[in-house]
Amino acid sequence: MRIALLGGTGDIGQGLALRWAYDTNHEVIIGSRDPEKARTKAEEYETELDSRGVDRSINGFENAMAADRANVVVLAVPPYHVSDTVESIADRLDDETTLVSPAVGMKSDESGLHYHKPGAGSVTAVAAEAAPEDVPVVGAFHNLSADRLANLDVQFDVDTLVVGDDADAKETVAALAEGIDGLRALDAGPIENAAEVESVTPLVINIARYNDGMHDVGVKFS
Amino acid sequence: MRIALLGGTGDIGQGLALRWAYDTNHEVIIGSRDPEKARTKAEEYETELDSRGVDRSINGFENAMAADRANVVVLAVPPYHVSDTVESIADRLDDETTLVSPAVGMKSDESGLHYHKPGAGSVTAVAAEAAPEDVPVVGAFHNLSADRLANLDVQFDVDTLVVGDDADAKETVAALAEGIDGLRALDAGPIENAAEVESVTPLVINIARYNDGMHDVGVKFS
Repeated sequence: MRIALLGGTGDIGQGLALRWAYDTNHEVIIGSRDPEKARTKAEEYETELDSRGVDRSINGFENAMAADRANVVVLAVPPYHVSDTVESIADRLDDETTLVSPAVGMKSDESGLHYHKPGAGSVTAVAAEAAPEDVPVVGAFHNLSADRLANLDVQFDVDTLVVGDDADAKETVAALAEGIDGLRALDAGPIENAAEVESVTPLVINIARYNDGMHDVGVKFS
Repeated sequence: MRIALLGGTGDIGQGLALRWAYDTNHEVIIGSRDPEKARTKAEEYETELDSRGVDRSINGFENAMAADRANVVVLAVPPYHVSDTVESIADRLDDETTLVSPAVGMKSDESGLHYHKPGAGSVTAVAAEAAPEDVPVVGAFHNLSADRLANLDVQFDVDTLVVGDDADAKETVAALAEGIDGLRALDAGPIENAAEVESVTPLVINIARYNDGMHDVGVKFS
């Protein structure tokens, strides 16, 4: 499988890129608005993997070029760039491509972080509204700590919740998630249920803030 | 400690009553708008405990009478009765009483359950607005499966999230929570952070619906 991480130079993009390159045989492509930045970061990830004895080729491209080459395109961009980013790559997508939305809108006050629900109902729904009609959109990887993901010394034992209206696309993304060691994918239903999934992200950040000894908090359901 | 469970004849009230009576030495009082119903249920709980070799006295009263006798009053009523219930017991409360809000507003559609955020920001905030100014309000026990709680054969290993603006009251409630075997209390911050905590309840119900073999889903953070 070819996975393009748009915004793959940011925290969550870096974490997913490293984990997929380290734990699986999927081809990982880094996308950015700036192709030079994408290439530089891709080389950094290669160096990090090489230092762990893993010889992987990771390429960097401008977002549309990265999306063009991929079966799965992860929108690892800030929530307010999701719509723009989807529009900028729309003509590179088709019904064989799955779009993945991990972004969460949050606002902060002195108490902590709060879920900032977009008018569309969720960031996943924003992505689905921006996407061409035949391109399936799946929400996933919202509640993973970018720091834990990017640190390959850390062993995972957490869940990620997957939402989407296309069963095949959801299965593809769940399988990609479970390719990462110690990560389990759970089905949280259609995109209509994405807000409750995205709300977990400010919650885990608040828990890390208010409980001594808890950092980069993850969640498991049982 | 004396704990009054208002709405203690309902599902979550029953579960908390049985667990506290079974796992701790706290005195458990059942409250209901109908004192006869409260007494009948209290006797049922005594019988259930007796069948497990635990000889505990549980009394039932009308809500205001139950609250009058308690150090901690749990508002185990539906979300739309929280405000009324607090007002109906307000003259029995003082700064030595802690009010606990476990209720969550939800609405359902064909996709699943969704968090229904009250105008006040959360049900916990609704309780705090209705409470006399000197009575501390703590949100807790939102995301526990009533069925798992009420079945004393089930061993817990889940977290509950505690929110509140009064540190002492929060500590009291966290200690009560941790008196239940296998239940861990985590601090999620002030009442301002309650919406993200309450949102976990529809999420765990959706997860139970969409994943084979998962029932009465609980959550653990790490």
